[in-house]
Amino acid sequence: MFRFLWTKAAAARARFPVKKMTLTQISSAKCFEGYQKVYEHESSELKCKMRFGIYLPPKTQHVNCPALYWLSGLTCTEQNFITKAASQQAAAEHGIVIVAPDTSPRGCNIQGEDESWDFGTGAGFYLNATEDPWKMNYRMHAYITEESVSALAPICNPVLCPWGQKAFTGYLGSDKSKWETYDATCLARTYSGPPLDILIDQGKDDQFLAAGQLLPENFIAACTHKKIPVVFRLQEGYDHSYYFIATFVGDHIKHHAKYLNA
Amino acid sequence: MFRFLWTKAAAARARFPVKKMTLTQISSAKCFEGYQKVYEHESSELKCKMRFGIYLPPKTQHVNCPALYWLSGLTCTEQNFITKAASQQAAAEHGIVIVAPDTSPRGCNIQGEDESWDFGTGAGFYLNATEDPWKMNYRMHAYITEESVSALAPICNPVLCPWGQKAFTGYLGSDKSKWETYDATCLARTYSGPPLDILIDQGKDDQFLAAGQLLPENFIAACTHKKIPVVFRLQEGYDHSYYFIATFVGDHIKHHAKYLNA
Repeated sequence: MFRFLWTKAAAARARFPVKKMTLTQISSAKCFEGYQKVYEHESSELKCKMRFGIYLPPKTQHVNCPALYWLSGLTCTEQNFITKAASQQAAAEHGIVIVAPDTSPRGCNIQGEDESWDFGTGAGFYLNATEDPWKMNYRMHAYITEESVSALAPICNPVLCPWGQKAFTGYLGSDKSKWETYDATCLARTYSGPPLDILIDQGKDDQFLAAGQLLPENFIAACTHKKIPVVFRLQEGYDHSYYFIATFVGDHIKHHAKYLNA
Repeated sequence: MFRFLWTKAAAARARFPVKKMTLTQISSAKCFEGYQKVYEHESSELKCKMRFGIYLPPKTQHVNCPALYWLSGLTCTEQNFITKAASQQAAAEHGIVIVAPDTSPRGCNIQGEDESWDFGTGAGFYLNATEDPWKMNYRMHAYITEESVSALAPICNPVLCPWGQKAFTGYLGSDKSKWETYDATCLARTYSGPPLDILIDQGKDDQFLAAGQLLPENFIAACTHKKIPVVFRLQEGYDHSYYFIATFVGDHIKHHAKYLNA
């Protein structure tokens, strides 16, 4: 339920934008004249095998293309986004590579890793854990690299919501000052980097919005205070499903393409 | 692997095109301004509970819309098409309802129903079985109603391929003359109904094409002989996956919309 699209413009302007490592191709299917592939590799950060999806638009056959990183939410693997989000058409049209990593280490045999759906396997929270027994493998923040530009129904302020508090206590310990590094609202409050252009879509009937897990209002307040422009679209009637994602993912790819192809 | 889109124009020109029966809504999610829903009902034909997906484009809020019936292939439930095929955008654009039934009865406790992936559960073959122990429940032909107009990677001539021979022997018995009712190629050879406009997309790298399970060449030969127009598009590099379906389903919905909205 992070569901951020991260832009890695400069670093990813490669014809085949993956770092040098041994990649095993798991699957490959032609889609909108490009290819939707899944690869497996040994992650030195996570000390386990990891899979990721990568869509190569047809334009990559001739020129270098920029890449977007799609970070899925709780319970997802690398499969959910590539099979359900209908992203390939817009990626093909705009010439954007989309990399979709998994959401946590898997099969590490850590006690309790499969006990809850919102902590452990499938719930890496894109942080580097500091607490035993998680700190050896749960280093998703190091595994991915960030530069946030858009999001669909994100957990905006995890230090104040039940999911975030459970995960951060387990992975990072009880010192709340360490939590703020992984909280978009806390980061916005002290942001001093280059200008941002943030697009967020949020379903108005999202059950997790009503449950106080997402808290976009806190993120918007922080951005307003710091004069960071945010286009926040509260979409009447939409929920938290991939049907919501599929409806608006084209707008997000177009939003990124504007900068990536500039 | 039938994957036919059937057009039920006149009968389905209802604001909410389902026959009168008790429907239980299983899920509902807004998608491209319409709604993707799943319903469950008791089927009198199949004598079990059945689920189907239905996409209601936004236009149904104001006017009656025509419906397409998507018939999924081997192993599928009502979920595969609605989650993976990215059909809702084109359906919303053209104002077409899409009904996606399940592919077989389920949970009937018939001996052997779960023993093979290509026979029994998930493999109803859209026929009315005449053989024990299948004939009580396996009546998918009666459950759906037909009028073929387009297809994606269909089994064109099941009486001559291994899947069809296994299924027809089991469901219909060894008298091959009874098989021809459910074989598109045999039906084309004796067709004398209204003019047809058939669109077929077929991936050239489809593993089941190479294995002789689909046999589109036989269907085309029969149509050519009877002067039935077929647009057959052999798509270079595409396989049998939903990535192939997602790429071309928009063209098929547009093809049907041309007649349904005429």
